[in-house]
Amino acid sequence: MKIVVALGGSALARPGESLDADVQKRNVARAAAAIAVISRTHEVIVTHGSGPQVGLLAMQGDAYAGIEPYPLDVLGAGTEGMIGYQIERELRSLLPKRHIVTLLTQVEVNRLDATFRHPAKMIGPPLEQQDAERLADAHDWKIAAEGAKWRRVVPSPEPLRILELPAIRLLFKAGVLVICAGGGGIPVTVSAEGVVSGVEAVIDKDLSAALLAHQIGADALLLLTNVDAVYRNWHGKDANMIRDTTVEELRGLDFAANTMKPKVEAACRFVESGGSYSGIGQLDDAAAILLGQRGTLVRRPGAGLDFSVDPGMKLT
Amino acid sequence: MKIVVALGGSALARPGESLDADVQKRNVARAAAAIAVISRTHEVIVTHGSGPQVGLLAMQGDAYAGIEPYPLDVLGAGTEGMIGYQIERELRSLLPKRHIVTLLTQVEVNRLDATFRHPAKMIGPPLEQQDAERLADAHDWKIAAEGAKWRRVVPSPEPLRILELPAIRLLFKAGVLVICAGGGGIPVTVSAEGVVSGVEAVIDKDLSAALLAHQIGADALLLLTNVDAVYRNWHGKDANMIRDTTVEELRGLDFAANTMKPKVEAACRFVESGGSYSGIGQLDDAAAILLGQRGTLVRRPGAGLDFSVDPGMKLT
Repeated sequence: MKIVVALGGSALARPGESLDADVQKRNVARAAAAIAVISRTHEVIVTHGSGPQVGLLAMQGDAYAGIEPYPLDVLGAGTEGMIGYQIERELRSLLPKRHIVTLLTQVEVNRLDATFRHPAKMIGPPLEQQDAERLADAHDWKIAAEGAKWRRVVPSPEPLRILELPAIRLLFKAGVLVICAGGGGIPVTVSAEGVVSGVEAVIDKDLSAALLAHQIGADALLLLTNVDAVYRNWHGKDANMIRDTTVEELRGLDFAANTMKPKVEAACRFVESGGSYSGIGQLDDAAAILLGQRGTLVRRPGAGLDFSVDPGMKLT
Repeated sequence: MKIVVALGGSALARPGESLDADVQKRNVARAAAAIAVISRTHEVIVTHGSGPQVGLLAMQGDAYAGIEPYPLDVLGAGTEGMIGYQIERELRSLLPKRHIVTLLTQVEVNRLDATFRHPAKMIGPPLEQQDAERLADAHDWKIAAEGAKWRRVVPSPEPLRILELPAIRLLFKAGVLVICAGGGGIPVTVSAEGVVSGVEAVIDKDLSAALLAHQIGADALLLLTNVDAVYRNWHGKDANMIRDTTVEELRGLDFAANTMKPKVEAACRFVESGGSYSGIGQLDDAAAILLGQRGTLVRRPGAGLDFSVDPGMKLT
C-alpha cells in the first residue's frame, strides 16, 4: 500500500512546549518511531508541518540587527531543511538499511488567489500587542489577535503543482523513503516563460499533502496530529468521535477554522480525487489508524479495510 | 562529461556585501547563469558553500530571547534549504525543461578527528571583541581573532561518507540536475548499530565536493570562487598565475590557510582519487575554465583537454 504520512505540528512541539532543539529532537524521534512501524509494511512518503518555526525564524531575523528578516519562501526552505533533516536522521537510525532522502519542494500557487488580499494564516509565536505592532510597522507584517495575544498573519494560497514531482516519483518507485513538501512546500509562482519566483506566503501543509498523495497515486493519506480523532460538536457537551465516515458526511458538518478544519478538507479532497482512504488521528496511533482501530477513517464508498500491518510489529 | 560544480561563498555574497535577501538573490542568479551554460553540454551536479550564513543564523538565534540557538547540524540543514532552494529556483527559471532537485545531504565524520580538540573554522560575521566574548561565555562558543575583529570558530572534520549517495546516483543517472552537499553537508556520526547523531561542526564544502565528485565518478571537479586562478606567491611581488598544472606541482607549493588552500587540497584529492581534471577560478569564467582558457586546471598526467562546450552558447 502506498501511503503519504503528514506529520502535524505535534512532530515538532506539543502545545505549551518550547521550540528548543532538544525538545524538537525528542518529538521528531517519536514521530520517526511511528513512521518506521508503518514503513515496514507499506511504501511511505513523509511530509511535515513547520509549526510556528517559519515565523520564529523571521522573529530571530528581526531580533538580529544588520540584516532584514528573510522572506517567507527562503525561511520556508530553511525550515524544510531543519525539520526534514531531523526526521531523516531519526528514521535512518531506526531503519539503517533503508534509503531515505529529504527533497526540497517548490509548490506553485496563483498570484490571484484571494488569500493575498486577506491573509489569515497565523505563524510565529504569540506576542504582546505592542511588540506585534512594532514588528508590523517595521516589516510591513500583518497581525491579528489570538485570544489575548497577537500573531503575524500571512497569505496561505492553494497548492496547485509540485515542481519536483517527477523526481519524487522516480525515487519512490525505486523504493526510497522520501521526505518532501515540508511546511506545505516553498510557495512560488511560475510565469508563462517559466520564470520561477518566490512568494511571501505559507501553504497549508495538509492541503499540499493531499495534492502530493493524489499526484503520487497513493492509496491512503494519513494525517497525524495531537488530537485522537475528528469529533462532531467538538466544543459542545455532546461531542462525539467520528470513527468511520465518508466525504459526504464530513462535508455536511461544520468545523471551526482550527487545526482540524484543514485536515478534514485535505482528507476529503484526497478521497474525492480518487484516493481510497484518509486517516486522521494521533501520532502514536499511526499504525492503529490504518488498521481501523483508532482515529477517524474517511473512506471512498465501497473501499474495504484491507490494510495489513506486520503482526510482529510493536505499536509505539 | 560528468562535472561536479562547487560554488564558493561568492555565490552568496561577494566580500563586503551584505547577506540581505536581495543581494543573495542577485548573486545566486549570477551563479545559476554560469551553471546553466555548462549544463547544456555536460551532466552537472551542483554543490555550494554556506558562506558566513550558518554562523549568522546562530547569531540570529542568540539575538532572539526565549530559545537557545540551534546546534550547527540543524543550522547547516537550514542553510542547505535556504541556499539550495534559491539555486534550484534560479536554475529552473533558466532551464525550464530540466528536472532539478535539491537533496539534503548528511556527511559522516569521525568523532576522533583532531579538529574537535582544535576548532579553527571561522563562521558567522566578524564581531567586536567584547561581543564575541559575551557570546562565547553565553553559549560555550570558541572564538578567535581575525585582524582587529573576532569570529566564532568551530571544528571542521574530514568528510568520510555521503549518506544519500545511492539516491544522488539514481537521480544523476536519470538525467536530473542535483543540488546537494550544500555547506559541506550536515555533519553526523554513525554508530556501529547505525544510530545517526548530529555533530556540532561545519565540514569544508570543497573537501565534500571532492568526495562527492570521486564517489559519483565525475570526470571533472570545478571549484568556483571570486579569485580568477591559483597563484604562486600570492602575497609576494612575483605573484604569478598557475594555468595548467599537476597535483605534483601543487603539492610542492605552500598556500596560506586562506580560501585557496582548501580548494587546492580538494582539486588535488579529486585527481589523486582518479578524476581527470579539477578547475579553479572565477564564477563568471566557469565555461572558459573547462575550455582551458581561464583559471587553473589541475590535470591527471596524460589527461588531454577534451572538454567541449556548445559553440552556440554565450559565455556569461
